[in-house]
Amino acid sequence: MILSGVGTKMASPSGLRSIMEDIATTTAAAAPGERFLNLGIGNPAYIPEVAETWRRLTAAALATDFGEASCRYGPSRGSRELVGAVVRYLGEHLGWDIGPRNVVVGPGSQMLCFIAAAMFTGAGAPRPAGLVLPMSPDYTGYQGLTLAAGQVTGVEAALRRGTDRSFTYEFDFDALRRRTDLGLLMLSTPSNPTGRSLTAAELDQLIDVAASRDVPLLVDNAYGEPFPGIGEDALPPRRHDNVINCFTLSKAGLPGERIGFAVGPERYIAPMVSFLANSALHAPQLMQAAVAVALSSGAMDELVSTAIRPFYAQRRKVVEKMLFGKLPAGIDWRLHAGQGGMFCWLWIDQPWFDDLVFYEALKREGVFVVPGRHFFTDPTGAGGFGRHARQCFRLSISADLAALSDGIGRIARVLDEMSHGGPAPARTRETV
Amino acid sequence: MILSGVGTKMASPSGLRSIMEDIATTTAAAAPGERFLNLGIGNPAYIPEVAETWRRLTAAALATDFGEASCRYGPSRGSRELVGAVVRYLGEHLGWDIGPRNVVVGPGSQMLCFIAAAMFTGAGAPRPAGLVLPMSPDYTGYQGLTLAAGQVTGVEAALRRGTDRSFTYEFDFDALRRRTDLGLLMLSTPSNPTGRSLTAAELDQLIDVAASRDVPLLVDNAYGEPFPGIGEDALPPRRHDNVINCFTLSKAGLPGERIGFAVGPERYIAPMVSFLANSALHAPQLMQAAVAVALSSGAMDELVSTAIRPFYAQRRKVVEKMLFGKLPAGIDWRLHAGQGGMFCWLWIDQPWFDDLVFYEALKREGVFVVPGRHFFTDPTGAGGFGRHARQCFRLSISADLAALSDGIGRIARVLDEMSHGGPAPARTRETV
Repeated sequence: MILSGVGTKMASPSGLRSIMEDIATTTAAAAPGERFLNLGIGNPAYIPEVAETWRRLTAAALATDFGEASCRYGPSRGSRELVGAVVRYLGEHLGWDIGPRNVVVGPGSQMLCFIAAAMFTGAGAPRPAGLVLPMSPDYTGYQGLTLAAGQVTGVEAALRRGTDRSFTYEFDFDALRRRTDLGLLMLSTPSNPTGRSLTAAELDQLIDVAASRDVPLLVDNAYGEPFPGIGEDALPPRRHDNVINCFTLSKAGLPGERIGFAVGPERYIAPMVSFLANSALHAPQLMQAAVAVALSSGAMDELVSTAIRPFYAQRRKVVEKMLFGKLPAGIDWRLHAGQGGMFCWLWIDQPWFDDLVFYEALKREGVFVVPGRHFFTDPTGAGGFGRHARQCFRLSISADLAALSDGIGRIARVLDEMSHGGPAPARTRETV
Repeated sequence: MILSGVGTKMASPSGLRSIMEDIATTTAAAAPGERFLNLGIGNPAYIPEVAETWRRLTAAALATDFGEASCRYGPSRGSRELVGAVVRYLGEHLGWDIGPRNVVVGPGSQMLCFIAAAMFTGAGAPRPAGLVLPMSPDYTGYQGLTLAAGQVTGVEAALRRGTDRSFTYEFDFDALRRRTDLGLLMLSTPSNPTGRSLTAAELDQLIDVAASRDVPLLVDNAYGEPFPGIGEDALPPRRHDNVINCFTLSKAGLPGERIGFAVGPERYIAPMVSFLANSALHAPQLMQAAVAVALSSGAMDELVSTAIRPFYAQRRKVVEKMLFGKLPAGIDWRLHAGQGGMFCWLWIDQPWFDDLVFYEALKREGVFVVPGRHFFTDPTGAGGFGRHARQCFRLSISADLAALSDGIGRIARVLDEMSHGGPAPARTRETV
């Protein structure tokens, strides 16, 4: 069989996907009574009032809009109702003076990121145009977006250790400005995996770089403002002639339904609508109707302020308390300052630590986390990180509390064993 | 702004899309009392019992599966329930011995066609690999699928005039066998726009070509068997190591919800699943749950046999009767033998006829049809068709009956005027 260059690239599963498949396969094949604690999940937490609101809105859409929405093809830009609701919602919440031509609704925001990567990076542009992540580590899914291999690179963050157990990444703007291959800049804020939120001054600098090269800066607000608002004092999205802001309903309760939208200048949005028309036609419509009502009626804002934001704020406190209470005091472990998002990002700042060895040892204890290396565009650390890119792991704070408590206990035990010369020997049923 | 080669290609709206936008813009800007008859629509007819069944199945999915389906990410291959239902359904209906690894569910079958085109055509393969339509004309959307320009070509059909007002296209297999640039073969059956259905002998020959070059043949069963079954004695899809069969729920009543699936050998399906994981993650899940029940419970089969198939069979008879009753007897107009699908494909076999001139003249009479040239990969007719590629138009039989009756009357009047030296002079409010 013959695959094209694009085919070969897009057929290659990412490193993270192998991990996710390993988790799925292992848990599915678990012996009766054997229980795996999955702290690696990317799903948002199941918050009953959030699910109930969406169920009610979907039922209402089904009752009133089904014939118009589901039984007809729709516009590639998005349904008139949702596009209009987005325009009004962002006008009210962010003061943006935009119109329908600034909006495109997609079958998930990942598809919109994919479209942007396909259109703004790769061969055919008059100069080298890659997908550049201004800060690495960032969301691992960005690495699978480009149609050609080797087109996603990141600028390694500077590492700043806190005096306590905290650490933070800082942008290396000088390194970013030295890059001559910018086609598209992309980042998540608050970040998956680190929880880091952009500051206004940082956004100024990123916009300055994008504008000086006249390339788009795609800001992925998946966890941020104005919804789902998982974070404290997160920076509101900014309008600019070089900025595409992406929003998704996934972390606001509807990950399975694949609704996201991008907002930006018409010169970026118009070609994205054409790409969508040529590839997927349009996003699914019944959920567009439900989302339009959620934005227009205030239901979304109520979910954010009464359910989603408080849930994760409280949850982060609890999980951090567990970590500080349970992880071995004698080990130099550090937690990235978590200003938002759904994850704790841990760095075991010890020469004996390796994220994949840890993953396997922890798996034998019935716990899954996500090894950190997949979030770095250069996991070899050749760019300067050295071992750091193999010394991190991601823990989801949206797992259930009992699993988190039990799982963090087992993480502590494995870390303790590793620090004393090695993990517990493999059990018989180890498969990887 | 800088677009990549892919960006430039995918940003270009197709000729058909300009027509569709013209229709949308014109009807939206219609003066009060001005009524446009749209016989150009690609939507399936609104059949109340079909809509009611889907509404009921969606409500049931909402009641039982919402938390699991909508509030969690799903597998890129498709939900376990739908993939399993597809395997069982095709096993029962077609006798296929397949498993989950032979199935991928996508956010619409157009996206699956796009993925196949991206993976099996274009640069990077060891030999030229284009998207070749074994018969042109075919679905105009195929022309927008490839990431690079100039990658979609068709083999011009041979024209066979019937003794009555019928005509049919025939495959030119010799020309197809001479092609050295096959990367992917794609066709619809029954065809959009012509209504032509593949015969078993023709499918044998197409498979023979695909197998001898070891390239995939993608058969798009959008209107065919086993659902929606719009056609008489249509050939059932065939399993083969070089065949990808695509199926969609769009013409079975859910065009707005974007659910389709592809079935084929694992060597084709596995990379398509990876592409989907990297681009759109997965198809929307609540509707996957509803579709799984429709396939498993017999509801889909009941819709096909009691509602969809009889509706279109009856409708085609009525529309053909209108055409024969109203179109001018003195003009050599011909209707493609319509074995299935949702359209009448007309050929005005007269030197004075031009599809775009006709489109404009008809628009001034308040009627829309789709000019035929957009369905030909070589609308210049340079390949041998000559003027034929500009002498056809597509009429949707799913428009409402009053619109069809009135519209066909106006079509007859415009044809009569054109045959006598020109269309009626443009009215004042003409805008194109």
